[in-house]
Amino acid sequence: MHLNASSMPQAVRTAARQGLLQGPTAGLANGYVQANLAILPEVLAADFLKFCLVNPKPCPLIAVAEYPGQYEMLVGGHTLDIRRDAPRYNLFRDGRLVESVNDLSPYWRADMVSFLLGCSFSFEDALQQAGIELRHQSEQKNVPMYNTNLRLTPVGPFQGQMVVSMRPMLAADAIRAIQICSRFPTVHGAPVHLGDPALIGIRDIHQPDYGDAVTIRAGELPVFWACGVTPQVAIRHARPDLAFSHSPGCMLVTDLTNASLAVL
Amino acid sequence: MHLNASSMPQAVRTAARQGLLQGPTAGLANGYVQANLAILPEVLAADFLKFCLVNPKPCPLIAVAEYPGQYEMLVGGHTLDIRRDAPRYNLFRDGRLVESVNDLSPYWRADMVSFLLGCSFSFEDALQQAGIELRHQSEQKNVPMYNTNLRLTPVGPFQGQMVVSMRPMLAADAIRAIQICSRFPTVHGAPVHLGDPALIGIRDIHQPDYGDAVTIRAGELPVFWACGVTPQVAIRHARPDLAFSHSPGCMLVTDLTNASLAVL
Repeated sequence: MHLNASSMPQAVRTAARQGLLQGPTAGLANGYVQANLAILPEVLAADFLKFCLVNPKPCPLIAVAEYPGQYEMLVGGHTLDIRRDAPRYNLFRDGRLVESVNDLSPYWRADMVSFLLGCSFSFEDALQQAGIELRHQSEQKNVPMYNTNLRLTPVGPFQGQMVVSMRPMLAADAIRAIQICSRFPTVHGAPVHLGDPALIGIRDIHQPDYGDAVTIRAGELPVFWACGVTPQVAIRHARPDLAFSHSPGCMLVTDLTNASLAVL
Repeated sequence: MHLNASSMPQAVRTAARQGLLQGPTAGLANGYVQANLAILPEVLAADFLKFCLVNPKPCPLIAVAEYPGQYEMLVGGHTLDIRRDAPRYNLFRDGRLVESVNDLSPYWRADMVSFLLGCSFSFEDALQQAGIELRHQSEQKNVPMYNTNLRLTPVGPFQGQMVVSMRPMLAADAIRAIQICSRFPTVHGAPVHLGDPALIGIRDIHQPDYGDAVTIRAGELPVFWACGVTPQVAIRHARPDLAFSHSPGCMLVTDLTNASLAVL
């Protein structure tokens, strides 16, 4: 398997389906949308759908299964097998992570409803094309992520506080980044905050709750985006008897282009 | 004369032309574009035009006279008399302010070329419609303006550093303001800086170089826009034998609507 930035999405999915790719998808199939996955029992699906609609920045919907149990979904003109086409999945019981697996088929249930959510990889692509440095990439780290005091709009059992990712930039780049990301509402859209981290309940910017700390240089502002980890927090609150997600970084690679997500 | 927010632009211009209005135009003819004026001898006009084109944020062109000496200009479907339709003008000789007058006719020359430049009133209108508080308006002051170390791209004798205006806001409002102002490139467009004033050469945010200081509350960021005072700085550098501008705050009110300036 030689997967790289030039690989087609289907090649990445085939490798995942065959168990040949079980790791992160960052840097693969450049230009194509990689999706976060949330898969929940039907009994919770309507509330989760509403929860995403009223919290669109952390939970931007790209696709939803048409009926419970559907695992073959047409996305970007190709049929994906939701159970097997991501390289790695997390399995939750009563809201707690119990297992990480390469194939969800043995665990699938006829009542499971699949949600595909946008991921920051898409807007990072656009930022890099604009010549904006992404510090976590320069430093070959995971993006730093933080719990905040920004309350989500609750729906049914889904609630919690927003998780954000942070990218440090000079003010002029931050302004340009806001313009660029505003074009991509289905992949978290414009930042939710910039400047003083304490204002959104972050105590120590050098101690992220997820991912890695990155260097913040003199004159740079921390810029905060709503993060795809947020729905996982909300799902933990809802304690479904069974739930699946992708494993962090091991995304479902679709045939949708990042460019196709631009609203203008 | 009872001029107010509901007055039509032509009523404001007529009052100015008749000498009945000689003061500021803020709050008059709400929703219509008020223009900065720069009027220069033909010998400098080509360079000034190029200077505006390469420095579009501080010098956003709305209209340019078709030939030297033209003082009746068709703007927004109405013919304006550039010499008399603004309430007050400044007159410069060799780059120095020598007089403030209500009517330029006695000083007009056949070689004078008129430029209309966008003004922050237009984007402030859009910000207020979005529910964003403008501190200088709440405090009934002039917007604070500052000299910076942001170098303008020089053309011929025109050069200098950018002058900026500042509006303090919470980060979420600053992000929204960037989105809104990006739609209006001909009235200074998106901010040029936010956060630490020292990074653009401003020593004391509480001591503006022009206008009034305003309150900056805890948690607010200063947000900086390119300012229409900038071309006056550049003109001072160029030392034309004769030049005219509007008097600060006493703008040329046009029949263009602010909404018509939105590029999307």
